[in-house]
This record gives sequence, structure tokens and C-alpha cells, in this order.
Amino acid sequence: MPLDSLIEAIKRTGNPTVAGLDPKLDYLPDFIIKESFSKYGETLEGAADAVLSFNMGLIDALCDIVPAVKLQAAYYEMYGWQGVRALCQTIEYAKQKGMYVITDGKRNDIGSTMKAYAAAHLGATKVADREIPAFGAHALTVNPYLGSDGILPLIEVCRESDKGIFVLVRTSNPSSGELQDRLTEDGEPLCIKVGEMCEEWGRLLPGKYGYSGVGAVVGATWPRQLAELRRRLPRTFFLVPGYGAQGGAADDIKGAFDKDGIGAVINSSRGIMCAWKKEGCAPEDYASAARREALRMKEDIASVIG
Amino acid sequence: MPLDSLIEAIKRTGNPTVAGLDPKLDYLPDFIIKESFSKYGETLEGAADAVLSFNMGLIDALCDIVPAVKLQAAYYEMYGWQGVRALCQTIEYAKQKGMYVITDGKRNDIGSTMKAYAAAHLGATKVADREIPAFGAHALTVNPYLGSDGILPLIEVCRESDKGIFVLVRTSNPSSGELQDRLTEDGEPLCIKVGEMCEEWGRLLPGKYGYSGVGAVVGATWPRQLAELRRRLPRTFFLVPGYGAQGGAADDIKGAFDKDGIGAVINSSRGIMCAWKKEGCAPEDYASAARREALRMKEDIASVIG
Repeated sequence: MPLDSLIEAIKRTGNPTVAGLDPKLDYLPDFIIKESFSKYGETLEGAADAVLSFNMGLIDALCDIVPAVKLQAAYYEMYGWQGVRALCQTIEYAKQKGMYVITDGKRNDIGSTMKAYAAAHLGATKVADREIPAFGAHALTVNPYLGSDGILPLIEVCRESDKGIFVLVRTSNPSSGELQDRLTEDGEPLCIKVGEMCEEWGRLLPGKYGYSGVGAVVGATWPRQLAELRRRLPRTFFLVPGYGAQGGAADDIKGAFDKDGIGAVINSSRGIMCAWKKEGCAPEDYASAARREALRMKEDIASVIG
Repeated sequence: MPLDSLIEAIKRTGNPTVAGLDPKLDYLPDFIIKESFSKYGETLEGAADAVLSFNMGLIDALCDIVPAVKLQAAYYEMYGWQGVRALCQTIEYAKQKGMYVITDGKRNDIGSTMKAYAAAHLGATKVADREIPAFGAHALTVNPYLGSDGILPLIEVCRESDKGIFVLVRTSNPSSGELQDRLTEDGEPLCIKVGEMCEEWGRLLPGKYGYSGVGAVVGATWPRQLAELRRRLPRTFFLVPGYGAQGGAADDIKGAFDKDGIGAVINSSRGIMCAWKKEGCAPEDYASAARREALRMKEDIASVIG
């Protein structure tokens, strides 16, 4: 089941995209910031309140046409624990609106600590006799540098619930090849080896649409590798960042999909959040601009996956 | 300057150790938990309050003999934003008591996002015309899988202030070799290559004791590699987890130090936090037990570095 509910949400909306909510203040319309500062001052609390308002507006405008949101933890942590509270509240709100929620935390640690991250982000924390979900997203992004110890505790939590993970395989940033493209013993780049590990870990979390609960992050900025990884990892669902602001176009992400047009979800963060700036529309209209961009992106992707 | 203040704190106390504050409730004496639950109920807020009390007791007992604390983010995130607030409060308290504070977050992301993490954990966040430190630790642990893009934004923040980073090179967990020991093009394991990258990044942050502001995490559980990395990375200061509960002994960490007996700081988390359980002393005496264990550990390390 793990990523099945994401796949079902994609089928329901006919839209394999995820809206990235990475709300640094620079991206927010002034009227939202002013209102929050008037309540809480020019403080982390004020910033966090603005972030939450901005997110709620976007979620309202997107929830019937975009199946999922991805929340980049860094943009909440930068506003302190108050920002992390806004992360928590945004997750809750998006879930209420029926969206699939991915926390983009790229967490990683040794086994005993990874159990704590798994409880924090996907499962529940034991407090006396209660089990309390701390953040409660549907999926978490994870870094593979520590090997299986950093993955298996998450798989255990995913198995008990409809949750999934996305392991970094080939990231979208320019320097990703410094480690990920290094050739290993058998002449293949490290990212291919990590992809194969995802396939193996995925055996522990089979899904009903052929894709396991262990997905992979593969950037739109490496279209050749994206297509190669799709061929070689038939059970691994892809989360694809790098479309739009980072340079990836529809043709670049074509190879992420299988012959049935599933197998991947494409992320756009700045493209959707900042559509109001690009359009030059009234700031009050930011959420509608995000919706228009999300619909444009849907058509753009549909044009290449048919 | 970056890690210079850590090195100075080690010299001042004559003790190259860092106390890990990874306070899951299981490690806390009942009397602390009961008091917090009586104030806030069996809630995340209650748990977070207990965690903070426990930490403050440990910091009071350790601050004159242990130069640094390392806070594992996972054990705060598992108690939700309330736990993250306790992380923030613990950092503040430890700094007030003169301790060097390392946030063990193993953060990693693309460049634009890494700027947000750098602001969040080491620098300050811009809110209107103010620059507000969100967490404000002295150092942060970082995962290298994304290459330079994930490191350089941190170096920029470190350069402006007396801050440092520790990059994961060879982690202490059993499965760390799955990626870190893979042989690369030139027949050397990946972790050696990452170590060499740390030396290069370190050129951007030179320190006055010969060690740069870019440190490396190298586990006590791999004594041979620890000694090899020490020889090959003369400018890179080591943060060494894995002593004690994970199996590393004093002989195993000997190789982490240079001929002058500096170059590394050894972490103990459960060993110090849970000393009261191992000793079997009264729970009310947990902080004194932690102090006794920290002094024992100091002697143990001194016996091998002379």
C-alpha cells in the first residue's frame, strides 16, 4: 500500500504533479506579511504565521487539481520552532483537504536514531501510554549515505501504515555528480547502485500498482539518467524535482514515466508559489495564479506522457 | 576561527569529549517525567518540558568539565514542534553555560535550500529589517551526498561568524560501508574521497590551530580507517561518535588524535545520559552520575592520548 494512495490521488486528478511549499518570506505577497506582522510583530512568530496563511491559500486553490504537496523542512526551520509549528499545521491542513503530504527532510542517521525520525515524521511517538503523531506526513525524503541502517527503521513504520519514503538517488543540483556519478567497482555510477538498493528495499513494501513504498528522488535536470533509471528500476516510483525554476522542461521528465504514463510525480515549487510574480497579477490573486500555473503544468506534462 | 573556539574549550577543560543530548523519554528518570506531565499532561508539550528539564540538569552538572554538547535533532523532532522548541531552549541554555553546541541534524540539500538550513542552524534569518538567529548552534553536522552545493552555503555563513560544520565521512553504524566503502575509479573507498573533499572545502575556512572549520564525522567503530583518515586529512578536525554504547573503546579512538593530542572530539550520548541507570544510583542523582561518567571517560581518553 505504501505509495498506493499517492498513485490513486494522481489517477483521480489526472495530474502527476506535486506542489512544493517552500515558503520563504521573499515569495509571499506583502499583504500577507503585513497582516501577520501586525498581529505578532517582525518576529519569527510573525513570519511563521505569514507562511501558514500563504500555504493555506495555496492549498485551498490547488487541492482539487494537484494531488500532493511537498514541504521543504529547511524553509520552516529557518523560522525557528515557530516555523516548525507552521510546518506541522500545514501538514494537518493539507491532509484535511485530502492532499498527499511529503515532508522533504532528507533525513538520515544510524538505526536507533532513524527510529526516532521515523516516529517523528511518519509514525507516532510514545508518550506514557499514548501514541501521538508528531508531524504525520504520508511520506518522507531520505538520504542513503548511511546505508540500510538509515532506511529499514522507516520501512518498519511504513509497513504498519499507508506511508512511503523517497530515497535520494540522483539529485537535481549541479554538483550532484561529485559523489553520485563516481564510478564504483563494477564500472557503474554510485547513483545506479543506490537505485538498485531502492529496488531491493522496495521488496519489503510491495504496492498494488507495481510500485513499492520505497521511491527515489531523481532530478529532471538529468534526463538521460532519469530514463535509464526508469528502465532499470521497474518497482521504484520517482519523485522528480528540478522542473521549472531549476531548468527542467516537459521533454526532460518524459523518461520518468512508464508505458502506462505512471511511475513518477513531478515537483514544482517556485514555479507554482511565485506564479503571481511571474504573471504580474495583483498580489491578492496569488493563489489563483498558482492554480493557473498548476493547470498549465498539468497540460505541459500531459503533452509528453500522452 | 571556525572550530577554534571548540579547540580552545577542549584545551581549557583538558577534555576532548562532547556529551550527546539525545533525550528520549526512556532515558529520563520518572520524577522528571511525572513533574512535567503534572503540568502539561501526557502530551508532546509535557514530553518536551521533561526533555528540557533533563537537559538543563545535565548541562549544569557537566558544563565545567565537558567542553561541548551535541544535540541529535531526531530526538527533539519526535516530540513535534514542542520538542523542536526544547531543542532551541537547550541550545540557548548550553550557550549561556559556556558550552560549545553542535546540532546533529545531518542536513543536506541543493544550494538554494542549503542557504535556508545555514541561516536556520548557524546564521540568522532575515525578517523585515531584522536578522534573527533561529537555532543558533556553533556547528552543524552535514551529509555530503549532494556534493559542494550542499556545503558551500554553510561555509559562507561560517566565514561570517565563529561557526563550523562536520561532514559525514565514515559513520559509526554497521551498514555505513554499503556506500561509504565502495571503491571508486582510483581504487579508493568513497569515504576517503569525501574526506579529501573536506580538506579542500576546509581551505576556505582556515583556523589558527591548523584545523579548518570543515570537520568530519568518523566513527569510533572503524579504528583502522579513523587512523588512516587522521594521517591523510591533516587539516580536518574529527567528531567521533560510537564510543561507549555503540562499542568503541579508548584504544579505538586513539588514532583520531594528532601527535599533540588534538584533532578530535569524542562523543558519548547514552553512556553519559544513562549513567544513572548503569550505576543503579537514585534517579534524583542522574546528573551527578553523568558527571562521574564524564570524568571516567576523560581519564579513559587521556590514558591513550597521553
